[in-house]
Formats: sequence, C-alpha cells, structure tokens
Amino acid sequence: MSARVGVEEHAAFVRSLLSGLGARPTERVAVADALGRITASPVESPIALPPFRNSQMDGFAVRAADVAAAADGPVVLPISGEVAAAPGLPEPLAPGTAVRIMTGAQVPEGADAVVPVEDTEAVVGDSDSVRVLAPRAPGAFVRDAGSDLAAGDDVLPPGLKLGSRHLAAAAASGLTELLVRERVRVAVVSTGSELVSPGAELGAGEIPDANGVALASAVRAAGAVVVFEARVRDDVDRLRAELDAARDAGAELVVTSGGISKGAYEVVRELLEPLGAWVGSVAMQPGGPQAAAAYRGMPVIGFPGNPVSAQLSFELFVAPTLRAIAGLPAASVDRLELAEPLVSVAGRRQYLRGRRDEAGRAVVVGGPGSHLVAALAASDLLLVVPEDVTALGAGELVDVVAL
Amino acid sequence: MSARVGVEEHAAFVRSLLSGLGARPTERVAVADALGRITASPVESPIALPPFRNSQMDGFAVRAADVAAAADGPVVLPISGEVAAAPGLPEPLAPGTAVRIMTGAQVPEGADAVVPVEDTEAVVGDSDSVRVLAPRAPGAFVRDAGSDLAAGDDVLPPGLKLGSRHLAAAAASGLTELLVRERVRVAVVSTGSELVSPGAELGAGEIPDANGVALASAVRAAGAVVVFEARVRDDVDRLRAELDAARDAGAELVVTSGGISKGAYEVVRELLEPLGAWVGSVAMQPGGPQAAAAYRGMPVIGFPGNPVSAQLSFELFVAPTLRAIAGLPAASVDRLELAEPLVSVAGRRQYLRGRRDEAGRAVVVGGPGSHLVAALAASDLLLVVPEDVTALGAGELVDVVAL
Repeated sequence: MSARVGVEEHAAFVRSLLSGLGARPTERVAVADALGRITASPVESPIALPPFRNSQMDGFAVRAADVAAAADGPVVLPISGEVAAAPGLPEPLAPGTAVRIMTGAQVPEGADAVVPVEDTEAVVGDSDSVRVLAPRAPGAFVRDAGSDLAAGDDVLPPGLKLGSRHLAAAAASGLTELLVRERVRVAVVSTGSELVSPGAELGAGEIPDANGVALASAVRAAGAVVVFEARVRDDVDRLRAELDAARDAGAELVVTSGGISKGAYEVVRELLEPLGAWVGSVAMQPGGPQAAAAYRGMPVIGFPGNPVSAQLSFELFVAPTLRAIAGLPAASVDRLELAEPLVSVAGRRQYLRGRRDEAGRAVVVGGPGSHLVAALAASDLLLVVPEDVTALGAGELVDVVAL
Repeated sequence: MSARVGVEEHAAFVRSLLSGLGARPTERVAVADALGRITASPVESPIALPPFRNSQMDGFAVRAADVAAAADGPVVLPISGEVAAAPGLPEPLAPGTAVRIMTGAQVPEGADAVVPVEDTEAVVGDSDSVRVLAPRAPGAFVRDAGSDLAAGDDVLPPGLKLGSRHLAAAAASGLTELLVRERVRVAVVSTGSELVSPGAELGAGEIPDANGVALASAVRAAGAVVVFEARVRDDVDRLRAELDAARDAGAELVVTSGGISKGAYEVVRELLEPLGAWVGSVAMQPGGPQAAAAYRGMPVIGFPGNPVSAQLSFELFVAPTLRAIAGLPAASVDRLELAEPLVSVAGRRQYLRGRRDEAGRAVVVGGPGSHLVAALAASDLLLVVPEDVTALGAGELVDVVAL
C-alpha cells in the first residue's frame, strides 16, 4: 500500500487529467434554448439597433424649426397624417405640418423632432390641427437608427454566460441561433454487486444505488450533461464493456463509485490499475480511497462506494472544473464559529457535514461516518478541519464550504 | 390620464394579483428529474438507513471477546469465511473464528466488531488464519442498521429545494418518485403590429420581436415554465383569442409586452381596461406605462413594448414572486460608489443600466433610453436612483441591483 497523498496533490492530479475538457467544441443552439449557455465567439448583429429612426414617445413628429416659435406661445400645426408602429414606409412630412406618431413608429422623412403628446393640446373645433405648447430641439425624442448598435457591431462578447437580457439583444438583432460551447458530456457508473435500482425489492445484503442518482444530479448541477449511466456488479469484463459503451456514447469523462478500496472485489482497481491508473489513499475523511485514470484517452475519476464519500469526492475533485467550464460560481467559502467542540483525526483533512444554527455558528450534523446519507441531506455546509488539527473548541473558527 | 402611482404601490398591487400562485398544486416526479424542485410534503424513508448492519472497513468480522487478548499480544484466529458487499445472507460467525469482510458487507450474526485489515497480519504458512494485532471494542467499525435513519423517519422535510445530496438520500431510501410543487405555468404574449419573428426578413417599419424571447427566458430563469407563447398584431380580437388559448394551455399567469401606452393602437389597454384592468403610469424610468388585470380569473401583467422597459418591469414586478415560489434567492442588492456623476428625473425612480468597473465603482452603460437592448446586454447591474434625487456626484453611493 502506498502512502497517502495530500488533498491538494490529488486535486491537482485530477485537474490535470481534466484539463483537456477546457477546450470546448462548439454547437449552434436556438436563441430561445440558450439560457445559461456560454457564447463561443463574438456575436455580430446583422442589423443596426434600432433598425430605423423611430419615436421615443407618443406625440407628433415635426420639423423642429416649425415649432421653435412655441417658446413664445402655442403654435398650431395642421395634422397631415399618422404613423403607428407598424409595417410600411410613412409618407414624408410636409413642411409646416405635424404627423401624429406612436412610440416606436418610424419618424417620417423631413421630421427631425417629436413633441410628446403631453406638450400638446387639441384645438377646439378643429380635430385636424394640434396646438404645440413647447419647442423641441432637432433630435428631441427621436431614436436614431444604430444609436444602440451599428450593423456589424458585436452585440455579445465571447465567453459570456447567457442570461435573458443577452438573448433579448440577440433576438432584437434578428438572430435565431447562437454559437455556444458544448456542455461537458459525462458518464456515471456505479459499481457494486450489492446495488439494486432504487425502488426494487431489497433482498438480503442488497441496497438501493444512491450513487448513480447522486453523481448524475451533481453532474447536472455543475452545468454538465449526463450522456451515459450504468450500474455494474463486481465484474471486470462488465465494467470494461460499460466504459467502452460510455465512450461510444460520447462521454468525455467518467465518474465511478466503488471498487477502489483494498478489499477482495475492487472492480475499478482491477480493471484500471494494470492500465496505469492511480488508485490510492488521499489524506482526507471521508473519501480516503480515490482513483484517477485515463481509459482509452477518456479520464475516469473513481470515488469510494460510500455515498457520502462519493458525493464529497465529486464536489472536491471534479465539480470545480465542471463549474468553471460551465461559468458557474465556485462553492462559497466562509469562516464560522463552532457551536460545539469537535475532534478530528491527525494527518487527514476532515470534512464534517453540518449546518448554520440560529446564531450563525457551525453545528455538526450526524457523525463522521461516510454512510450517513440522510445526515448529509440534512446539512447545508461542510466544516473543513485541517490535517494538523485534532480538536477545536466551541467558539473557535472553522472554514465552511456551502453545499 | 390618472396620476402616476409609486413603484412600491404598483409592486404591491401586482403581488396581490399573484398571491394565488403561492398555493402550489403538487405533482410526482422521478427522483432523477427532481433537481431544483421543491418538496411538497415530508418524505418518509420506507426503509432503515443503512438497511442492515454492515462493515465500515475492509477487515475481519470477529467477536470482540475473541480479540480482547490482543491488548497483550497478537491473537491468531482461524478464518471461517468471507463476506463481500453482495446479495445473500452470510453464515453466522462461529465463535473463536474470524470472517474476512469487505466495506459495506453485512456483518454476520454472532460478530460484534470489525478489525480493520491494517490491524492484522497474514500468518506465514497458514493462509487460513489471521493474526489480529489490536483488540476492538464491541461495535467497533460496525454500522448498525438504522444508525442514519429509522424506517418510517422523514428523510427530507417539506419545502426543501432539492440538491443532489437530497436526491441521493431519497434514492438510498429506495424512493423512485418525489411529491414536489408544480412550477408556475406562464404565458408570454408580445403585442405590436411592427413585430416579426427574429430572423425573418425585415420590411420597412418592422423589427424583430425581442420581448418574446426576453420574457420567456426571464420566466425560465425565475424558475417557472413557459406553457404558451404568442405574438399578436394590434388587434383586440386576436389578443382575446390568445389569452383564451393561454388559459386553455394551463397558464396561471400571462405577461404581455406593448399596447398599454397612450397612443392610438393600445391593444392590451383596449381589451382589458373595459374588463377592469388597471392601466396607468408608474413613477419610474424606464417602464412608466404598466398594466395589471385579471382576465377570466388569470392574472395578466402588462409591460411596455420597449424591450428594456419590458425586461426591467418583469424583474421588478413579477420575478420576485416567481423566484420566491421557486426557492431561488432574491436579486442581490449592493451599494457602490459612482464612477461618474449622473442626473436623473425628479419624481421618478430611475433604473440605469451599468456595470462594476475595475475599481469596484458603478458605471452607467449606454443612456437612459428604453430602446437600448444592446446596452442592457452589456450591463450586469442596475443603478437605482430614488424619486427625489436629480443628481449624484462621482464618489457618491448608489444602490445597485445585480442582473
């Protein structure tokens, strides 16, 4: 048995195995389906925004010169037409007249200002005229074509995580598709002859496979996609077949649970160690046994079979890379006072499950056992106790990572 | 024209119209599909966790009494069998013997402790025996059935937003489905005769409909689902037909854009005002015109047609309710120094688009115009200038809301 490696050392090794995932292939997706995706290139607008000169207000399009005298008193202009926000080209404005105009409607040729309806009055007995109460400078309440963006300008930068406002700008530019980075395609393989499908009748010695659901949903929460899921009994040939099938399904990364410890039936170890995998012990609790390999060029990261260890190992070693690729924030780290004293094991970094109490202090939930899946579910943070710390008193500060 | 109402007053009115959405119907979804959903009831585990007494380590299951003498020197025990983590019931342990056991395997009847393999040695020349180097107290490295959770106990509370660790605990409990709250079903209706599908050839006076994509993706980002989308020209009968169709599609809420201003073709106003809708002006910029109604019992919240106004109005008036129902955090609010002076309009709360510069100060992006969709896309925060503030100097503090 080899000596234990440090948490950071193993994390760096896994990161290096996953480094190839960073250069993402690209794909075109409909703008309407692109929420949360990341642009793969600058996005040019094929049209100017706005595409034509239009009115910022409901009111009257005029020549500014024709209403300049309104500075000294109301000016009455005949209404020569009406322009709505609608298809078609409006007639040019006849000098000395006003055209009723709606917000967003094209400003007719010849007009260079809009008088908002609030600055006008009806002319009693003459519905074909309007009384303009205030002058407007040329350009007033007129949105010029291209004042937001010129045709050919970039409307979105590359590497942008797309929110609704970005999709709105793409749609306003008349775009229907965006070139985005593909999401990382992950396979999840649970190993263990004792595992059955959740919901299946349990025979003696059988347990529901929690790791399949746990890792698949953790992969999705980290912004990647699950392209392959399998559960295999402790049979090296079956595992090999499933890894081949995962590769055929386009997986770029496989995460496995179980089969890497020092027992007699360690299927992941048996298959991958002869192929050069590192299978060993990391100085952490839970989650000591870990494995990392490349299988036919595809990284395979192996976690222990205990569901708590498997979940924690994924969060520590794989999730940070996937989250970074997906543009998701890293897990938030904080430092809280301990509500109660705790003890830890020398030489191992301990990740205790816990939560924040009403007083904002960290409380341990359940014990250190790696089988306590319900206790993990009742937790919302991990207390991180360093390798060289064996005891902490109530009130002492501890690093916590949000779950 | 009625007087302007305040932002808070309109927000409270919309909230009251949406209050019926809070009592969510429930639905059963597969555990594997429940990530991010919210439990509708306490979730009981039908089985104990763990379901049977099992080993915490690879090692040897023994009677603690048989290895007590190892405190004074190694004890050699004959190996009477082997138990793997696998289906089937192991033979009871014969007193005075040890059974080789794997992590997670059932501890045989008669055994009450596990000696980890690290605390044992092979007996040279006798592979049928094991040398135990240290005593173990009863219960050592044995995980009792139900030590995580008893059968019938709640494994998940109601009202919980499901993360992967919660789904793992549900799967470990053998559950295949969870009762969750239904997501809010929303219809998005864009109005305006000038609108065409993004990507369609633009004729004179036509613009791509950005509001449909903007509001639909904003609805999704707020944790609700879009069950109906439509775009209607300025035609009251068409709008009525689409609202009826939205209702038939199961929409619980409709958001509309356009048709609520004071122009001549205000289709939302024309349809809904006679039915009791409030259509008026809110003391804000952009987004002054607003509408809120119930149509056949279904709330209809109307936003202006300018894409920036529509998006901002959604975030201010509808998104907070949807996010709260979906268990998503509220938009984060901060207070930053202004990089440059700004002016605002008296009597209106102004929401300027901006971003945080390298020095962590707030910078305005684009101008106040509600047509600046590209500028909104380039922003990552809103600067909120109160109604009674008309100017702020560089270095003064301003409230900002993250986009």
